[in-house]
Amino acid sequence: MSSIDSLVRELRRLPGIGSKTAYRLAFHLVKGSAEDMKRLAAALHGVADRVHPCPVCGNYCEERVCPVCADPRRDRSVICVVEEAYEVGAIERTGRFKGLFHVLGGRLSPLDGVGPEALAFDGLLSRIDGEAGEPSEVILATNASVEGEATAVYLEGLLRPLSVRVTRLARGIPVGSDLEYVDGTTIAEALAGRREMSA
Amino acid sequence: MSSIDSLVRELRRLPGIGSKTAYRLAFHLVKGSAEDMKRLAAALHGVADRVHPCPVCGNYCEERVCPVCADPRRDRSVICVVEEAYEVGAIERTGRFKGLFHVLGGRLSPLDGVGPEALAFDGLLSRIDGEAGEPSEVILATNASVEGEATAVYLEGLLRPLSVRVTRLARGIPVGSDLEYVDGTTIAEALAGRREMSA
Repeated sequence: MSSIDSLVRELRRLPGIGSKTAYRLAFHLVKGSAEDMKRLAAALHGVADRVHPCPVCGNYCEERVCPVCADPRRDRSVICVVEEAYEVGAIERTGRFKGLFHVLGGRLSPLDGVGPEALAFDGLLSRIDGEAGEPSEVILATNASVEGEATAVYLEGLLRPLSVRVTRLARGIPVGSDLEYVDGTTIAEALAGRREMSA
Repeated sequence: MSSIDSLVRELRRLPGIGSKTAYRLAFHLVKGSAEDMKRLAAALHGVADRVHPCPVCGNYCEERVCPVCADPRRDRSVICVVEEAYEVGAIERTGRFKGLFHVLGGRLSPLDGVGPEALAFDGLLSRIDGEAGEPSEVILATNASVEGEATAVYLEGLLRPLSVRVTRLARGIPVGSDLEYVDGTTIAEALAGRREMSA
């Protein structure tokens, strides 16, 4: 197998990259400089050698504990639960959340063989210290998909016996969108979740 | 900058990969095994170290001369001219072309600063041996875009003084498509290029 073919085969393993895209990417890389390819290879090695999941929250980090968990200024009374580590970034970029995170590492999906034992539920439960009353709130920020919703419902069942408030992200009309183009289920959720307008 | 951030930056250099896709790819790689990442890195090194353009036709290869140019069974009387090396594969996969190739390395595009000097025109002209009468035909297989067409017209001008037949790929209705969904220019080209039906 030629070098280009093995590169195409490796690129095809990536999500959303089919055989034509892998082919185009490989030829783009070949057409570029060897330095560019080696820099990408070095970046891959850097990640492979240095990045690991934070033992507390499951987010990826290079330190012993991730920067969020290690930061003494973060609010330890709230834990925001997300499905995947890259969703931590989406919430961090808003700059509106000062609590801690917990990464489940996926969502419940029986058809794909993903049951509760595959997700970091135990790790989350072990972080809830009923005596100290910390955290006082767990925000379920799983995706608004069928699987995400099922995961949230299951998790709520696990958390109910513990003395902790369980909330989830509001459903509603995305900011900036036209009502005309929003689907009916979302409008129904937005109606059900309507709030008083403050004067 | 963290290892993940540098990987995201390197992935974003690839064509068609924006910042969100780069982010998702990087996290997919992190979530996978370190071996997968190192195998991709090794594939990149393999290409960077071993692959180079064929000195005759410009296609990428690992040998001194590419397998097509080196193959004594290929028909040396026809050269098929393509814009990019990955288009050689598209023609090879048809199994219907037994001649040689010539890779231009792009198309004329004055707005992007790509003039004739940036393309492998000289290399093509030097392959045409008028005395030996080889090749007897040059097929212009540039893309059916404005730039591809302009490149073909320019190249035809260069080839006209030489004793060589210059052809281009037929324009027409793509096989398997409904006339209703084919654009007017293509239908007009297909009408102009209509052929006798053999009984």
